[in-house]
Amino acid sequence: MRKPNLQIALDQNTLAEAARIAHFAGPIVDIVEVGTILELQAGQEAISVLRAMFPDKIIASDTKCADAGSTVAQNSKDAGADLMTVIDSATVATMKSAKSVLDGIQVELYSAWDWDRAAQWKEIGIEQVIYHQSRDALLAGEVWGEKDLNIVKKFIEMGFKVSVTGGLNLDTIKLFEGVPVYTFIAGRAITGQEDPAAAAQSFQDEIKKYWN
Amino acid sequence: MRKPNLQIALDQNTLAEAARIAHFAGPIVDIVEVGTILELQAGQEAISVLRAMFPDKIIASDTKCADAGSTVAQNSKDAGADLMTVIDSATVATMKSAKSVLDGIQVELYSAWDWDRAAQWKEIGIEQVIYHQSRDALLAGEVWGEKDLNIVKKFIEMGFKVSVTGGLNLDTIKLFEGVPVYTFIAGRAITGQEDPAAAAQSFQDEIKKYWN
Repeated sequence: MRKPNLQIALDQNTLAEAARIAHFAGPIVDIVEVGTILELQAGQEAISVLRAMFPDKIIASDTKCADAGSTVAQNSKDAGADLMTVIDSATVATMKSAKSVLDGIQVELYSAWDWDRAAQWKEIGIEQVIYHQSRDALLAGEVWGEKDLNIVKKFIEMGFKVSVTGGLNLDTIKLFEGVPVYTFIAGRAITGQEDPAAAAQSFQDEIKKYWN
Repeated sequence: MRKPNLQIALDQNTLAEAARIAHFAGPIVDIVEVGTILELQAGQEAISVLRAMFPDKIIASDTKCADAGSTVAQNSKDAGADLMTVIDSATVATMKSAKSVLDGIQVELYSAWDWDRAAQWKEIGIEQVIYHQSRDALLAGEVWGEKDLNIVKKFIEMGFKVSVTGGLNLDTIKLFEGVPVYTFIAGRAITGQEDPAAAAQSFQDEIKKYWN
């Protein structure tokens, strides 16, 4: 089974802090993500800087695009992004419009999806979804469980590449053993550590334990 | 019946262009909005600049926040925003978290709402919603109609202040006659005109015709 990618979500309040963390942990991960908070703070320059730092990595732009799909996708693409998120509650027309400009569109699953909508996304050529425990839901005490795993598996059966995110740490990786997850997205579990490079390496090592 | 506000949505790709338009049309409108596209491009500096230009106007930050409510709200507030949007598919926990930091939270209605969810928003103190024809839906040929009006009216009956947006032009204003709309949000119908100040004034005049 293919080793899942490790993606670092850079959601710092300043580009300086994000660049500092990326400088150390970036070389170790597979995908560098410009998080929504960072993008709202620093603008598209955040994408350009990380693209320039990591010419050979996949760069993800977490815009959570809800409208004006082609404009937002063009801007992300111009800045150097390979992947861009759209929010689940965007219309199919918006997703199609984004996809017409940037192929790597990922639907981020919040509370506005069902299997019929997912089938529509598939129909217009969307290949990736991000299954998401929201930060605020986690703060409210929710945890990863069987229910989440079953949803992830069903998306994979439908043919989607599935990234998982939200409160992932070293202990949660093994819950997904045997599931062909496309990408694990980690934020604070890497960026909030004193040694982000070591934390990223621990994630890669843990992933390699179960997928090889 | 109270005159609805006029809000200009600044969705330019550069802060320079947004500032140019705001310089002319800003003094005429009631609310200046930093649109999502502009915010993703220029970052929070876009909010700071417009706040500084218009110390006495209401400044709206169209972040379409989906997660990390309190962080995104704090950043918008620090930059000077009075209002901030959250996306309908955000969890109630996220909305509550945003609202705990910035009182002026507006839920932007895409495809992830129903009347039960709206009642939950009301319960946690959310006072504003934005009813929305998406740009991409408009491009796909949808227009304002009776169905939209009935939804707007029902939200108002529930006690929400309702802003309406999406393809508004001078001819669509009169469709809302007799409805206590809180705010009309116009984008390209003002920003795309050769004389944005005159276009904004025409909107204000048209609104005054039906609400006085």
